[in-house]
Amino acid sequence: MARIDDLRKIATRLRIHSLRMTTVAGSGHPTTCLSAADIAACLFFGEMRWNTKDPFDPANDEFVLSKGHAAPLLWAAYAEAGIIPLEHLLDLRKISSDLEGHPTPRMKWVKAATGSLGQGLSVGVGMALAQRLDKSPARTFVLLGDGECAEGQVWEAANAAAYWKLRNLVAVVDVNRLGQSDPTMHQHDLAALARKFRAFGWDAVVIDGHKVDRILAALKEAGKKGKPTAVLARTLKGKGVSFIEDKNGWHGKPLKADELARAFEEIGCLPDVDSRKFVHKPKPFHKKKAASSFDFPRTNYKEKTATRLAYGNALLSLGRVNPSVVAVDGDVKNSTYADKFFEAFPGRSFQSFIAEQNMVGVGMGLAAKGYIPFIATFAAFLTRAHDQLRMAAYSLSNIKVCGSHVGVSIGEDGPSQMGLEDLAMFRPIPGCVVLYPGDAVSSEACVAAAAAHRGMVYLRTSRPATPILYPAGE
Amino acid sequence: MARIDDLRKIATRLRIHSLRMTTVAGSGHPTTCLSAADIAACLFFGEMRWNTKDPFDPANDEFVLSKGHAAPLLWAAYAEAGIIPLEHLLDLRKISSDLEGHPTPRMKWVKAATGSLGQGLSVGVGMALAQRLDKSPARTFVLLGDGECAEGQVWEAANAAAYWKLRNLVAVVDVNRLGQSDPTMHQHDLAALARKFRAFGWDAVVIDGHKVDRILAALKEAGKKGKPTAVLARTLKGKGVSFIEDKNGWHGKPLKADELARAFEEIGCLPDVDSRKFVHKPKPFHKKKAASSFDFPRTNYKEKTATRLAYGNALLSLGRVNPSVVAVDGDVKNSTYADKFFEAFPGRSFQSFIAEQNMVGVGMGLAAKGYIPFIATFAAFLTRAHDQLRMAAYSLSNIKVCGSHVGVSIGEDGPSQMGLEDLAMFRPIPGCVVLYPGDAVSSEACVAAAAAHRGMVYLRTSRPATPILYPAGE
Repeated sequence: MARIDDLRKIATRLRIHSLRMTTVAGSGHPTTCLSAADIAACLFFGEMRWNTKDPFDPANDEFVLSKGHAAPLLWAAYAEAGIIPLEHLLDLRKISSDLEGHPTPRMKWVKAATGSLGQGLSVGVGMALAQRLDKSPARTFVLLGDGECAEGQVWEAANAAAYWKLRNLVAVVDVNRLGQSDPTMHQHDLAALARKFRAFGWDAVVIDGHKVDRILAALKEAGKKGKPTAVLARTLKGKGVSFIEDKNGWHGKPLKADELARAFEEIGCLPDVDSRKFVHKPKPFHKKKAASSFDFPRTNYKEKTATRLAYGNALLSLGRVNPSVVAVDGDVKNSTYADKFFEAFPGRSFQSFIAEQNMVGVGMGLAAKGYIPFIATFAAFLTRAHDQLRMAAYSLSNIKVCGSHVGVSIGEDGPSQMGLEDLAMFRPIPGCVVLYPGDAVSSEACVAAAAAHRGMVYLRTSRPATPILYPAGE
Repeated sequence: MARIDDLRKIATRLRIHSLRMTTVAGSGHPTTCLSAADIAACLFFGEMRWNTKDPFDPANDEFVLSKGHAAPLLWAAYAEAGIIPLEHLLDLRKISSDLEGHPTPRMKWVKAATGSLGQGLSVGVGMALAQRLDKSPARTFVLLGDGECAEGQVWEAANAAAYWKLRNLVAVVDVNRLGQSDPTMHQHDLAALARKFRAFGWDAVVIDGHKVDRILAALKEAGKKGKPTAVLARTLKGKGVSFIEDKNGWHGKPLKADELARAFEEIGCLPDVDSRKFVHKPKPFHKKKAASSFDFPRTNYKEKTATRLAYGNALLSLGRVNPSVVAVDGDVKNSTYADKFFEAFPGRSFQSFIAEQNMVGVGMGLAAKGYIPFIATFAAFLTRAHDQLRMAAYSLSNIKVCGSHVGVSIGEDGPSQMGLEDLAMFRPIPGCVVLYPGDAVSSEACVAAAAAHRGMVYLRTSRPATPILYPAGE
């Protein structure tokens, strides 16, 4: 079983890189890299099919590191795959380096910034949806920590993945038992986690996350039951170095120089293996290209019209000329008027139910795969996804967000429904374009401009019908 | 079984009130009131023990309407209990009336504003925790809709309730199958919801939510297995009025005058029953009062000190002089320095793990019961709870929120960990005091001032040690 031995060697190399990188940087999270090293070796050099020459090859399996503080492990894996020169690894966390402390798309293989926990699975759901839309055989893998499974967004994403029957989505949970300040809620009770994923409609399997053969077998079986699959891997934080292994108090602490020397005495030298030979290339797959445009026929508004209605009309018109445009809704499409798009293009419309965090994450995943998602709900409820929206900005995501029912014009429904904080929320988000059209004509123009702009856009709309201010087509 | 008949009559009265109120108001959500009317009758006039003379009687069972759009039903129940004059019900949604379209504490029995869905269970968790701290035999009931169970926060709260073994917490889910724009994810597959609650450590029971005897029996059994209990009630949206019952497209639509007349033909007149006689008073219970103060000995800082460390020290000192002060953490207490309080007062410290939405909701529940919760995490991660924080403001909640690691001083960890958006988030929150102490001395003063202030306070702290600017005690 040469392959098993080789993967073990690769895992050891990933451990050594992660330890050295964080010690040189003087900060970072080596123990969380060590717990997931065997998993990463099996994913990148065992199960995944990917073209190391092109991060945007549509044939690629996708990977999201939801537990973003394990960034050194990710950089180490890309280095082993020949994407990053090995010597660059020691630039971790330098301001001049793309190898940040938590992943961002400064490094081009990263399609979603992570580091605020519990967000990666939603992005993975969006990517897996995109792969299905593309009719691609590729899959999406998300690596989570057990601590972040306390975030509700993980269960919003789990819900969505099961609802959409995403058998091409695999979540691997690195259950290393220890959070930052305390043991996690379930510690090594992996059965408890399995019950949760199964109750949320997933296939779930519990394995030893340090046994390469078990990891490979679980990944190979994933999806065969027609469901998204959770591989729950029992691991030890700091695995491989006796004095930090499974010990509380080592979260986010690099080894000191003398500790590193002791660690290397235990682990040994870098094993001699050329990891690049173990990368599996995907079968060629080409996404069908269709004619697409951002110009659509404008409406000749005469009567008072709500800007939210004009948004809905414009989105429908845009959808007719641009097959990359998709819509995501939080069970208010009859209020935002996204329902017009939903009715015309059911295959490109995604009902995310009342789960705004996941809704934004799914949009980020779709955008990462080249789609142009228009995400809409009441502006007030976008506050629910503030953290996801700021991470979308750090992800340089091409999402378009519409918040309806802004201001006090909805009166009797009360402040909980009013979009009052949305401008204060979106204006400081780096790179986000904020549009507030004054009438229906400009709403339509804003939808066209938002779609054509490469980057994050926020568009706010009002509930009541308001007068037309601009001549048609201006 | 006179009692069953009486409760049926009360439910009919609640239906009639809800229909009339929303028709007169010209807006509102009658169908969601009708689905939950039997449940409300059984809760307020069957199971709950409460003193209608005093919303702050510590002997009271607590109630949270998580599905806030059913506000008319809540007002109707309070009217039937003799708290609101019946004739005031028709002032629903008037700007002069306390009976808002979604509940707020303008009406004094409401202790948490709702209307942004999925938040009530967290508040209930906090209230149930407070009842336990008080050594009170009282319980907390939360009424949720099935649609809002898509919100991740519900599962964060479910996690927390099971972790803290809150047998005094009962969630009743009004599973009426229909959301706003579409059927819900599970529709009437109540077994799916039951699996989820059980997997999250709850006892769960499925009942017919229109059968008064079944509802009463389920509520009576709740908690007997030593766990929080979910009563999953199969209901029909619009129950009792044939032309709106179980029909999509009626969310948030009041009946027109002629429709109301037809509805009343079906339902009949207001049944003759004095609901007030069915309110169960609680056994008297008095909370022990302990001496408490906001003045604590100040530290004589000389050396450079991080404001986050001064926060931790001050919180510890405050805890010694004020037994109402409690701490809630999102698994970063060793970074915010809330760990000093946690070590000294484990009984008043609540590890909320990585679930910021629930963390804030739990704080709101504790505050609603008279505790002074200090809630802390990285400022960056408070964006995760933006929606909860704005609702805390509308709840007039007495929570104190600390966000650490503000600004770019954490450098190499990257933007996902930096508190950059927190001021823009907190400043527009109505009534929220924002404090940004410049050194350790003022941090301590800010903690004292925050505790003494009645209302929501945000306090931001920095990671690095910074010079002392003020003389001790200033």
